[in-house]
Amino acid sequence: MSARPVSNSIVNMTEMVLPSHTNSFGSVFGGTVMSWIDIAAAISAQRHSSSPVVTASIDDLHFIQPVYQGWVVNLKACVNYVSKTSMEVGVRVDAENPISGEKFHTASAYLTFVALTKDGKPKSVPELLPESEDEKRRYKEAEQRRAWRLHRRKLFSEHA
Amino acid sequence: MSARPVSNSIVNMTEMVLPSHTNSFGSVFGGTVMSWIDIAAAISAQRHSSSPVVTASIDDLHFIQPVYQGWVVNLKACVNYVSKTSMEVGVRVDAENPISGEKFHTASAYLTFVALTKDGKPKSVPELLPESEDEKRRYKEAEQRRAWRLHRRKLFSEHA
Amino acid sequence: MSARPVSNSIVNMTEMVLPSHTNSFGSVFGGTVMSWIDIAAAISAQRHSSSPVVTASIDDLHFIQPVYQGWVVNLKACVNYVSKTSMEVGVRVDAENPISGEKFHTASAYLTFVALTKDGKPKSVPELLPESEDEKRRYKEAEQRRAWRLHRRKLFSEHA
Amino acid sequence: MSARPVSNSIVNMTEMVLPSHTNSFGSVFGGTVMSWIDIAAAISAQRHSSSPVVTASIDDLHFIQPVYQGWVVNLKACVNYVSKTSMEVGVRVDAENPISGEKFHTASAYLTFVALTKDGKPKSVPELLPESEDEKRRYKEAEQRRAWRLHRRKLFSEHA
Amino acid sequence: MSARPVSNSIVNMTEMVLPSHTNSFGSVFGGTVMSWIDIAAAISAQRHSSSPVVTASIDDLHFIQPVYQGWVVNLKACVNYVSKTSMEVGVRVDAENPISGEKFHTASAYLTFVALTKDGKPKSVPELLPESEDEKRRYKEAEQRRAWRLHRRKLFSEHA
Amino acid sequence: MSARPVSNSIVNMTEMVLPSHTNSFGSVFGGTVMSWIDIAAAISAQRHSSSPVVTASIDDLHFIQPVYQGWVVNLKACVNYVSKTSMEVGVRVDAENPISGEKFHTASAYLTFVALTKDGKPKSVPELLPESEDEKRRYKEAEQRRAWRLHRRKLFSEHA
Repeated sequence: MSARPVSNSIVNMTEMVLPSHTNSFGSVFGGTVMSWIDIAAAISAQRHSSSPVVTASIDDLHFIQPVYQGWVVNLKACVNYVSKTSMEVGVRVDAENPISGEKFHTASAYLTFVALTKDGKPKSVPELLPESEDEKRRYKEAEQRRAWRLHRRKLFSEHA
Repeated sequence: MSARPVSNSIVNMTEMVLPSHTNSFGSVFGGTVMSWIDIAAAISAQRHSSSPVVTASIDDLHFIQPVYQGWVVNLKACVNYVSKTSMEVGVRVDAENPISGEKFHTASAYLTFVALTKDGKPKSVPELLPESEDEKRRYKEAEQRRAWRLHRRKLFSEHA
Repeated sequence: MSARPVSNSIVNMTEMVLPSHTNSFGSVFGGTVMSWIDIAAAISAQRHSSSPVVTASIDDLHFIQPVYQGWVVNLKACVNYVSKTSMEVGVRVDAENPISGEKFHTASAYLTFVALTKDGKPKSVPELLPESEDEKRRYKEAEQRRAWRLHRRKLFSEHA
Repeated sequence: MSARPVSNSIVNMTEMVLPSHTNSFGSVFGGTVMSWIDIAAAISAQRHSSSPVVTASIDDLHFIQPVYQGWVVNLKACVNYVSKTSMEVGVRVDAENPISGEKFHTASAYLTFVALTKDGKPKSVPELLPESEDEKRRYKEAEQRRAWRLHRRKLFSEHA
Repeated sequence: MSARPVSNSIVNMTEMVLPSHTNSFGSVFGGTVMSWIDIAAAISAQRHSSSPVVTASIDDLHFIQPVYQGWVVNLKACVNYVSKTSMEVGVRVDAENPISGEKFHTASAYLTFVALTKDGKPKSVPELLPESEDEKRRYKEAEQRRAWRLHRRKLFSEHA
Repeated sequence: MSARPVSNSIVNMTEMVLPSHTNSFGSVFGGTVMSWIDIAAAISAQRHSSSPVVTASIDDLHFIQPVYQGWVVNLKACVNYVSKTSMEVGVRVDAENPISGEKFHTASAYLTFVALTKDGKPKSVPELLPESEDEKRRYKEAEQRRAWRLHRRKLFSEHA
């Protein structure tokens, strides 16, 4: 199983905000955006691992700006980092007013996925080859987030 | 605007996992669960604030166990803490095998919501009255999480 | 198979009325409410019988008040009565204006479900243990409704 | 407002049973069928009254046969009877195995609708002109069901 | 396998335009109408062939008039022509303003379907028996469209 | 209103095939693919015109290969050609087996959209600037398709 470049896992997803996605202000539900983030990230993790995957966790998520009905939501996902059986996927969400053409950064998310065998057991994933400067920087930052996550989870289980 | 007890904001939500909620393993998408969490939490925040609300953020979320098609998902939400215009809502998600009756802790989530006026401006929310020991403990823990969030957001903006 | 208390079958379900649930008045379709009633009741019947179930019938249903977009709908279901292979489930539906906090009784429904084996054959269900005064009253009323149903079905088949 | 023939209100609706409509047996949810019945009947009542309408009630409903994924569901609705501001609509539901071509009677339903003005107040509806023998028979039976409904509602409110 | 009359394949489908089907003008998406056309036509082709079917192609489609939220869409489909393993289905789409009762021709579509065996291989379909003058005319026109399609596909592959 | 390059209108859309999108073979409905094509193309036309748009027509569409549940569908859309108030958008649809990574050309579609003012009247759109050789070739081919379309529509109305 040879290493794969980050570029192999890039996913571009575009959604139009329909009435059924919106609350009483005509702005999109947070949960709808999370749902799109999860799908885009899962496709990215599948591309890297050539395996079905399940979501293990999502880091904290801040919604920077409301997104309105009729607007277009652009999601860009790629794998940032891999450990033995898990992958961190980064997703950037931008909203676009389709009339003015203005674009707004809506949210950035980091999710971890586990690759599974047909029987649902975790399996090893190919190594990741960061090539550009940006990819190398994201690789390092993801390594750090992983340490934070393990640390927080430890804290969490001590309190439970 | 007098203070309101935590019990006023309790929401019980029950969902059945249908084929359209599941991936190729017959287990539910992470994003679908996030979407249910967001709805349950939004209803809780609306009850406390008697206002429409928007999701500002969600803390990191770990999926502990897969949930399968035909299973039942129980969500319980309540407001843990309020600051001037924002509220922290905690949501506990349990999955239930409807045949064996077994129940599994699936995820716990903390979301912050902002209450809005009719024109979409942030507005003050009533104070929160934690009554039981559990409610008081959750109030304190939520206060701490808020400090962490502000700290992380500061770190984040320094790096951006 | 030992008898089970009514409390074991209680289901609380909460739904938010979205644009896709509403007609041209912005009020929810009758059929959407019936659909929620059926899901809540099916979960309740599954809990009592530890079996998959199918809807056999629903008694007449009166919609007392319109329910508007953005409102919250609370459903409470429990098993009222069981005969050999079938169960009567009662569902009470209340709507809540999320801003004023006002609550309105919307509808009450009685459904019968049949428990099935893996091969889809009717199977016996555990006896029901009504404990509180309310549960005992509902048990008796359900017994009466059952007699009415059998009577009406007989009338119906004589005319067909 | 001149009287209108029954034939003016006939609605034929056809639905294909998709995975998202089905339970763990691959058979359609009772609530999904009720939802289709409500839509077909509402369109029929709108045609007769040239007004928006809301569902006031649905009589008891018996599911005669299960309907499976991939099958076709045919609904036929027409107005049976009108009083001042309300209409009874009858709906017959038949399921069709698309491969064998076999057809099965699934359910028959009677719903009452109220016609509304733009402001949501009940308004008078045109008289109904039953023409064929079947239409005249259905008109009489609907009159009787109306008497039963008023009687049951009276009983019901005495007990509440 | 004896020939079957056109009348055996007639499908009447009725849809109500809900908020989730509409764009920012409150008029229905072209893709939603195409989706309804495909379902109506697939049911018609299944009825003729007593087989599962897949869409092979759809001819060019012109949207004549916008259709608004709350309106009713009536689709009428029937098989026009069959060759060895494929069928041409014609679908006429009319929109109805439910208040004024006015009806508008929205689109006409021609789709070809292939009948499949259980293993997904193309299989022969029964011959078609056009009976009325209209059915005979449609049969001839469909034959001509088929020649055009084969011609265009040939042009297309020469350019690819 | 200055001319805009083709690159400004490029839309990349990615969809995952869920159970609710599929027929009894587990392959996606033709109408579902048409629906995605319409959304991708509408976003592209909106980007070029900075206006809301409605679908005027779609050329004939051939489905080359079945697409299965769990697969990923990639759509790429851009404006090929503009006349006074209308735009031709080309959409290429490729399916991807997420495990093997294989990609298959599924369909190519050409749609025309009309840009509208706030009141729903047709409005002029900016000129299109084809830059690359491919964009120039597509511009010429689209011009030819437009001539064909006008010719066919004329034929069609003579027969109606």
